[in-house]
Amino acid sequence: MSQAPGTPAPALVAAAEAAHAAYARARATHGRAALAETVAQGADGTPTMRIDRIVEDAVLHALEPHAVNILSEESGWLDRGSEVTLVIDPLDGSANGAAGVPLTAFAGAIAVEGEFTQAYTSWLDTGRTWWAHRDVPTPYRTSGRTELTGAALSMLRPHTAKPGPAAAWWAAASRAARVRILSTSCLEAALVAEGATDAFADACSDTHRLVDLAAAVVMVTRAGGAVLDAFGRPICFDPDLTRRWSGVVAATPQLAWELVDVLSQAARSAQREG
Amino acid sequence: MSQAPGTPAPALVAAAEAAHAAYARARATHGRAALAETVAQGADGTPTMRIDRIVEDAVLHALEPHAVNILSEESGWLDRGSEVTLVIDPLDGSANGAAGVPLTAFAGAIAVEGEFTQAYTSWLDTGRTWWAHRDVPTPYRTSGRTELTGAALSMLRPHTAKPGPAAAWWAAASRAARVRILSTSCLEAALVAEGATDAFADACSDTHRLVDLAAAVVMVTRAGGAVLDAFGRPICFDPDLTRRWSGVVAATPQLAWELVDVLSQAARSAQREG
Repeated sequence: MSQAPGTPAPALVAAAEAAHAAYARARATHGRAALAETVAQGADGTPTMRIDRIVEDAVLHALEPHAVNILSEESGWLDRGSEVTLVIDPLDGSANGAAGVPLTAFAGAIAVEGEFTQAYTSWLDTGRTWWAHRDVPTPYRTSGRTELTGAALSMLRPHTAKPGPAAAWWAAASRAARVRILSTSCLEAALVAEGATDAFADACSDTHRLVDLAAAVVMVTRAGGAVLDAFGRPICFDPDLTRRWSGVVAATPQLAWELVDVLSQAARSAQREG
Repeated sequence: MSQAPGTPAPALVAAAEAAHAAYARARATHGRAALAETVAQGADGTPTMRIDRIVEDAVLHALEPHAVNILSEESGWLDRGSEVTLVIDPLDGSANGAAGVPLTAFAGAIAVEGEFTQAYTSWLDTGRTWWAHRDVPTPYRTSGRTELTGAALSMLRPHTAKPGPAAAWWAAASRAARVRILSTSCLEAALVAEGATDAFADACSDTHRLVDLAAAVVMVTRAGGAVLDAFGRPICFDPDLTRRWSGVVAATPQLAWELVDVLSQAARSAQREG
């Protein structure tokens, strides 16, 4: 894992470049239905689409020369006896990617002895990248917003059939000035880090896995923001990909805590009534 | 308005290229707060941000050599005595553009004696363009989906404080398999035309103006889809930019009509109860 100071780890760059090339090739070679077809069950407990498989295979191949452990969405935990683990979502926004909505990302973070040290996100449809290291100054600054009222908030789609998450989604949407659903958590987190949007949240649906949040933990925290879980669970390295969080990624700790309060209170009230 | 068969009208291309250049210049020159500042009241009845003004000024300048009427979001109706009118949204997704969310579009349509004949949409953040002519075969094909159940649906953000539109939004979101809010109607319509998503709707909030829908009318209809209004009003050329619609842009006429039914019935029920 040798790297020049102030530059991304070679393993992260190699993985992102492999994802970028494989994604373009998959889109050029297969139709929408073929890309969206379920070809396996992922280590995270959700179905693996063909486009996920193609991109992850390319990423794992590119990482063969790098002597690191890997925790990846579809394959799970590959223990190679290193102190260093790459936590990667090879293709975030798989449904976007399969359908042709140009909002997909590779996102990876490095965990050293369980601590996240750096993160690298690549917008696969354009090649634009974001990098941050815990110990290196970053050009990214969040918007600095401290209140949900008036904020621009991204969320996962509402889980309309589940009373708690549905109420949480609506409560947050009712307070924010703008609401977006881009369907790519990692890209939305990068937009929080650079200040283009104020926050991104999973409204208590426990959809987020570690691979959706690890890059945000490094990048958004370094840029002045905070990453919390709506139910107060610590977001820390764990090789068990079936664990879930309801991530709250925000421009400031104040905004993150306000979102946690609004979301969790609305969810609990709805569940008591339900 | 002379043009080679099978190619976009030069006025549309000139306008889109001017928008693309001006948008990049505005983003490079001004900070977020300056770009979002209200500098005037637009002809459509909504505030004009500085970034809108910069892009529209550049577009109008580029159109000076073209002897056509112009109907544009901020300036309104410029009657130059032509039979031909360009209906343009110089910067769709202004809030995205001001903040740095890379989802903004130029969209223009040509109306000849009140009939829309061709449309041109440019994703200003990447330079990708879509063109369609009513009388020319197009490579775009919608997804062909006929039912809302299982569909990928884009919507404007929910208007949570208005009972009718709020109920309409939630009713449609509850039936769709995927929900997105990209906050750029014109780009979302282009994604419907090419089959990347199944439908896009304003859930009875009457936010859409003609400039938000004109390009979709040509492009999505030509690709096999349909563009309707949730309350049954015809979407036709009218130089009065204060008119509003709740546009429903869908992969097929069947899906468009189902959306109209779901949205309008939910809105009416909520208003009766309210």
